[in-house]
Amino acid sequence: MQTPIPEPTTRNAKATFNHILDAAIELFYKNGYHGTTVNNITKHAGVAAGTFYLYFPSKLALYKHVLITFSHNIRREIAAKVSLKSTRYEKEREGIKAFILLAKKHPQMYNIIWESLYIDRELFKDYYESFALRYIRGLNESVKNEEIRDIDTEVISYILMGITNFIGLKVVLDLGTNNNDVDYIVDQVMDLIQHGLFK
Amino acid sequence: MQTPIPEPTTRNAKATFNHILDAAIELFYKNGYHGTTVNNITKHAGVAAGTFYLYFPSKLALYKHVLITFSHNIRREIAAKVSLKSTRYEKEREGIKAFILLAKKHPQMYNIIWESLYIDRELFKDYYESFALRYIRGLNESVKNEEIRDIDTEVISYILMGITNFIGLKVVLDLGTNNNDVDYIVDQVMDLIQHGLFK
Repeated sequence: MQTPIPEPTTRNAKATFNHILDAAIELFYKNGYHGTTVNNITKHAGVAAGTFYLYFPSKLALYKHVLITFSHNIRREIAAKVSLKSTRYEKEREGIKAFILLAKKHPQMYNIIWESLYIDRELFKDYYESFALRYIRGLNESVKNEEIRDIDTEVISYILMGITNFIGLKVVLDLGTNNNDVDYIVDQVMDLIQHGLFK
Repeated sequence: MQTPIPEPTTRNAKATFNHILDAAIELFYKNGYHGTTVNNITKHAGVAAGTFYLYFPSKLALYKHVLITFSHNIRREIAAKVSLKSTRYEKEREGIKAFILLAKKHPQMYNIIWESLYIDRELFKDYYESFALRYIRGLNESVKNEEIRDIDTEVISYILMGITNFIGLKVVLDLGTNNNDVDYIVDQVMDLIQHGLFK
């Protein structure tokens, strides 16, 4: 995954940069990437039309920046929570919970990440492949430590991402019941991951 | 979930209806719903512009019809495979495999279903909630039969949909390795579902 566009260093420029970013995130969420123009963004951000191009070469470059920033924030947030725990069980529980709480706090996350599938499929692939690579690294360590069974950690990484994404969707879009009790839901997930489905 | 628009009954009308549908599915996949006009669809289908409205009141109505048709096909295909098996373990394995093979055969499926999130969020919610309701019904029976543990079948249904969707994405978009060996991947999934992650 690419690196984000560097933030400007002066206070004023940084504020403008962030106004543009916030406006874009709000409009992409509300009207979609294709339904949002650079003009919409600068108007919503309250900056002159030409200002946009001082910071971003194009709408696509801005979108990529938003995607990379979300990706970094998700990883950083999860890594911070997970690093406080010592066993794989606790790490997994904290990671899943951190993701769900983050998605609850930023409901635009799913929309904007998944929209990459309609903007440039390679961005979507890159997003999940690079997320999986980090997951696999952690799981491989836990196999070595004999905390988890010796299984295909690549497939497991997609399984765990799938679980986390769909449980997150359930909570964020309020599908079904119990969605205010994140701890209860995470407990059910961990119960399956620990004991399996069958009798 | 609503019912689809009824297919016309005469042979000619049915052919035109299906030409329009096929053109729409292809263009929605390639250029997205918002990037596709009714004119694009009729041109691609090789029918006169006005013909569209003999069959569909609007582009949105056509999109909803496509979504409902995909939904019915997925359910029918999975139900047909699952009904041949007697144990919950075998049913789950067949269901997951059927979904992945279907997604492989119709790579437009994901794009078009997930795009509902950007067209009308209620369609997306409705899609997954009604899918979950059917899943829960099956799982509840298996709890009664004492084939699976007495767990929250609603949460389990989202967990299993998440696993199936992300494993399907891995195969369809060729994320990581082993994606030509669907049986191998389904075996890894079943191993986790049966024995859990931890030692």
